[in-house]
Amino acid sequence: MINVGIIGATGYTGEELINILLRHPQVRITSVSAKLDKPRKIFEIFPRFKTRLETICSQPNIDQIISKTDLVFLATPHTVSMEIVPKLLKAKRRVIDLSADYRIKDIKIYERFYRTAHKDKIHLAEAVYGLPEIYRVKIKEARLVANPGCYPTAVILALAPLVAFGIIDLNSIIIDAKSGTTGAGRRLTEDFIFSEINENFKAYKVNVHQHIPEINQELTKIAGKRINVTFVPHLLPLNRGILTTIYVRKIKSKHLAPDIIKIYKKFYKKEPFVRIRQEDDFPRIKDVVGTNFCDIGIRIEKELIIIISAIDNLLKGASGQAVQNMNIMYNFAESTALL
Amino acid sequence: MINVGIIGATGYTGEELINILLRHPQVRITSVSAKLDKPRKIFEIFPRFKTRLETICSQPNIDQIISKTDLVFLATPHTVSMEIVPKLLKAKRRVIDLSADYRIKDIKIYERFYRTAHKDKIHLAEAVYGLPEIYRVKIKEARLVANPGCYPTAVILALAPLVAFGIIDLNSIIIDAKSGTTGAGRRLTEDFIFSEINENFKAYKVNVHQHIPEINQELTKIAGKRINVTFVPHLLPLNRGILTTIYVRKIKSKHLAPDIIKIYKKFYKKEPFVRIRQEDDFPRIKDVVGTNFCDIGIRIEKELIIIISAIDNLLKGASGQAVQNMNIMYNFAESTALL
Amino acid sequence: MINVGIIGATGYTGEELINILLRHPQVRITSVSAKLDKPRKIFEIFPRFKTRLETICSQPNIDQIISKTDLVFLATPHTVSMEIVPKLLKAKRRVIDLSADYRIKDIKIYERFYRTAHKDKIHLAEAVYGLPEIYRVKIKEARLVANPGCYPTAVILALAPLVAFGIIDLNSIIIDAKSGTTGAGRRLTEDFIFSEINENFKAYKVNVHQHIPEINQELTKIAGKRINVTFVPHLLPLNRGILTTIYVRKIKSKHLAPDIIKIYKKFYKKEPFVRIRQEDDFPRIKDVVGTNFCDIGIRIEKELIIIISAIDNLLKGASGQAVQNMNIMYNFAESTALL
Amino acid sequence: MINVGIIGATGYTGEELINILLRHPQVRITSVSAKLDKPRKIFEIFPRFKTRLETICSQPNIDQIISKTDLVFLATPHTVSMEIVPKLLKAKRRVIDLSADYRIKDIKIYERFYRTAHKDKIHLAEAVYGLPEIYRVKIKEARLVANPGCYPTAVILALAPLVAFGIIDLNSIIIDAKSGTTGAGRRLTEDFIFSEINENFKAYKVNVHQHIPEINQELTKIAGKRINVTFVPHLLPLNRGILTTIYVRKIKSKHLAPDIIKIYKKFYKKEPFVRIRQEDDFPRIKDVVGTNFCDIGIRIEKELIIIISAIDNLLKGASGQAVQNMNIMYNFAESTALL
Repeated sequence: MINVGIIGATGYTGEELINILLRHPQVRITSVSAKLDKPRKIFEIFPRFKTRLETICSQPNIDQIISKTDLVFLATPHTVSMEIVPKLLKAKRRVIDLSADYRIKDIKIYERFYRTAHKDKIHLAEAVYGLPEIYRVKIKEARLVANPGCYPTAVILALAPLVAFGIIDLNSIIIDAKSGTTGAGRRLTEDFIFSEINENFKAYKVNVHQHIPEINQELTKIAGKRINVTFVPHLLPLNRGILTTIYVRKIKSKHLAPDIIKIYKKFYKKEPFVRIRQEDDFPRIKDVVGTNFCDIGIRIEKELIIIISAIDNLLKGASGQAVQNMNIMYNFAESTALL
Repeated sequence: MINVGIIGATGYTGEELINILLRHPQVRITSVSAKLDKPRKIFEIFPRFKTRLETICSQPNIDQIISKTDLVFLATPHTVSMEIVPKLLKAKRRVIDLSADYRIKDIKIYERFYRTAHKDKIHLAEAVYGLPEIYRVKIKEARLVANPGCYPTAVILALAPLVAFGIIDLNSIIIDAKSGTTGAGRRLTEDFIFSEINENFKAYKVNVHQHIPEINQELTKIAGKRINVTFVPHLLPLNRGILTTIYVRKIKSKHLAPDIIKIYKKFYKKEPFVRIRQEDDFPRIKDVVGTNFCDIGIRIEKELIIIISAIDNLLKGASGQAVQNMNIMYNFAESTALL
Repeated sequence: MINVGIIGATGYTGEELINILLRHPQVRITSVSAKLDKPRKIFEIFPRFKTRLETICSQPNIDQIISKTDLVFLATPHTVSMEIVPKLLKAKRRVIDLSADYRIKDIKIYERFYRTAHKDKIHLAEAVYGLPEIYRVKIKEARLVANPGCYPTAVILALAPLVAFGIIDLNSIIIDAKSGTTGAGRRLTEDFIFSEINENFKAYKVNVHQHIPEINQELTKIAGKRINVTFVPHLLPLNRGILTTIYVRKIKSKHLAPDIIKIYKKFYKKEPFVRIRQEDDFPRIKDVVGTNFCDIGIRIEKELIIIISAIDNLLKGASGQAVQNMNIMYNFAESTALL
Repeated sequence: MINVGIIGATGYTGEELINILLRHPQVRITSVSAKLDKPRKIFEIFPRFKTRLETICSQPNIDQIISKTDLVFLATPHTVSMEIVPKLLKAKRRVIDLSADYRIKDIKIYERFYRTAHKDKIHLAEAVYGLPEIYRVKIKEARLVANPGCYPTAVILALAPLVAFGIIDLNSIIIDAKSGTTGAGRRLTEDFIFSEINENFKAYKVNVHQHIPEINQELTKIAGKRINVTFVPHLLPLNRGILTTIYVRKIKSKHLAPDIIKIYKKFYKKEPFVRIRQEDDFPRIKDVVGTNFCDIGIRIEKELIIIISAIDNLLKGASGQAVQNMNIMYNFAESTALL
């Protein structure tokens, strides 16, 4: 049994963390904090938790949090995490950071895409990128896990086998991604008003989105060669879910569909949360919403491979994956509270 | 041909006014203004108007507006209108005010419900309540029209015949109203974020909504007796439309369904924008969205009458009705640009 | 550990039963059946269950089902259940029927509202109405539980305290109910096409809905006096959730708000799935979706009480409540798999 | 003033045709027909047209239709149109066919994609593809116009300038398209139930959609070289609108963004319904819904061009374009009833 704290509990990923952890038999939520004008019971913020979580949510007090927890989840905005992490690590608390602060290893790239100076270069190198399918062994021992972005999770899992086995032209990757609105957090801008999103659909940050360097970094590591993807995200009029449609050129036309499906199935053979469809059978957002799964479907043309992956952006794309990482770090059964 | 100005053009009712007036053969939009950091072409704010309206939208300059217009629509928030109206009237411009500032005749009630002092008592008495079905003759000559609220339009039209003919217990009126989100304007509060409204439904301002005194005032006038309605509004996860379900007790059980339907049909006989259904046939929001109609369906039980009315809150509930009023004021065919 | 079967597994309530039961540590799903052209793995029908439930779903074979199960859930359409129940009971299997077949005790009323002859009068009397808050003791021992309808669950829980304590005029009950579309099941009619529901809202079966006799029967039992409610259901453009807004007249004006709130809190004191809000604080559909809770908010006017209740129609309104009943029948902790 | 008939008036494109034509000052709707069990007034099917169109809709009687009309719109399913067209042409009526029957010039391809034999090869050659931006002169004189599909309209307009001016690798065209549900017509399959579409998003007919040969045929004509596009359509949870995101490789890296934008602007200079955005400014579905416009935004990378186009699938993608064609055929102002 461990004690965990959540900093930034009033956003969507915080809410989702609470929801998952309340079902986790080996976890006690002992601290819940966020930027708030005054302390409030968590169920006053989220009435769905009434009778289930009586904890008071107040401004984060790091010393107090340290005294009450073994592990801290940071569901804070980027730039906030890197101010908190050093203190938590110094006090020997383990940390899972859901922000972007420790994902990008190249500080210049971080600073360009997030338009802010990085304040904790010391721990940046140490942070383990929390994608269990690639880094499970390192996650086990990690003090600091940088939980992946939602788009990168869906994209990297969809492409890893092709990139690892040298099947595709690494310069040809085109990712057309579509996300529900909770991907942007509880954002208060005119763009996110209901009547601006409902019955609407649009591309945004066309090929300049801040998740691009994260995708490039991880795919490059897997390939062992420099990769620059083309990435166009779109905003769906729905709450939860990401679907990515990915187009890549095959290097050799000899790779046939059954071979490629086999490569995927083998690559993810032991993974509890990646499911490969049969050829030409594609996942829908509906198939993964409310689950921690990443579902992947594939179609092979003569010169092209089309891959479609789907995740719930708040689960496998954020809080579910964070709990999966926690389960790995503490040797809990990896699916606990996630099925 | 008249020249019109729109103050407050960047909200939903302003946008809708532009959309209607661009189709009106006897109207030129000569001035478009709103609170803005810097002047912008109207199509930069609303790309749908590109190639159709090249006008620049800037901060309202009343003198300039006066010099360019015959009639001014105020699509401004309440409290703003009453600062502008005196200047426009003094310059002999006619005004249609879409805010609440000139609707409530009893200043104390206005000040209680809108939590602000009224600053233009002089013109309050003069303002004509812009519901053509009740006040057409006065609207014709009005200098200042107080365009009705969206809920009041749907409710008053649904109840006027019953109230006028003394068929119901005036103390028994229960109104369960449901509105799409544009009814609240382009509101920037956490409540109106897409993921808070989508897949959600709730009551709000339960029996304390600021449209209650407007409904009471107008029904009381029609009845000649004091009326206090019970009114519970709800927020629908859709962009446009209001549906009200109204429950009233009959005074005498002798009133039969066919009689009551006849009374409604006669009451609205010459109205171009009120449609009465056959008994037990009820309007849906879909039947009126995009139109200036108010559709009404009725079911008569032994002791109860159930009335359902539907309007598009941005058309018959706001900008459509405003143009209908303009058409009446200038002797244009009443349906011009509204069909 | 018990073995359970689900007949009618391919509808929304069947899907939801599977989803809940897969998390239940004392239950094994040993049989899954439905009307199908040919047997299919359940995850081919519901891809979300891939890797989680490998069972084959085929046409129900009652003998086989009996041989494999202790308890059977019937998620079948009404009229189908009453053909299956006698066989299951004869073989000493316990049954939770989610259809309407065993809810209405007065056969004439059943036959009028469901337009079909009842074929199992023998077991009708025996069936226990599965609302744990009212019938928990009987449910414990029941062989056959008639799981309540979704609207009746939301309405009866909202009104039971007022009706039991004689606080209101029993002839004054007006229920304005709103439901998401899964309440109607996986219905294949033109009315339920996406583009007919989306951006639309309507009343339907105005005061003639088949849940009216169920509500009347149960409220009458609680009151000990004949009750006839007015009930107008509406269809919301969202997947899950019911919100009812209920208007009743107080008998005596002396009942004050705090007293009435207290009565509610006392009435539901030990209930794990009913939550009473403070005065004038109302539940939203969002607060209960994905949960088995019924949340209730109350406002007291001088002569009127307004009650708003919210449930997830597929959980507390159907499959969640069915599992709650199962937990009671087998002495499992009542909340197992429901939190 | 001309008399027009609509066959297939009860579908979404039929409804939209009525809605547009009711505003057209030079058109009288003299015949409205569809497959129906019994004749019904059109406003009983579409209550929004109450008081506006009293016509009775009945089974199509071709002789009667011929006697009443100058022009007939076929809003019928494919395979139905080709049975009607020969009779109408023989009687010297002009025809705008909104189905796919006369779009594909290569009968083998038509028969493979639409899985049916073509029955009117005689008129197939004569039919003019009704994309005014490409075929305006021929449309003027046409007896039979094959109104384009919704996806092809959005795609061809987005690509025509690039293809015509030899700027791109013709083998590199990848089209990721997203459509609202009315694109599929009033379809009665389980896939189109509200709760299957809402909060869901999926790809379908991945690179096998029947609009692919239509796109290939028209782009090939413009290029003068064989083109085979990659085309993946997706289904959006909204009623109206198509957005296509298109990825193409530049042939020469010398083409700079300003040049390419200029080429687009010049290509569509005189077009009333195509609007080109500035570089890197992209249309949203919201910007075109309810209009007949096709809006196009472009981003130029070093080796890639990304083009995004948006239309209302029922207007520029179907009925609006059909009326635009009619306006051209009869020398009416091209925008009449479309602004």
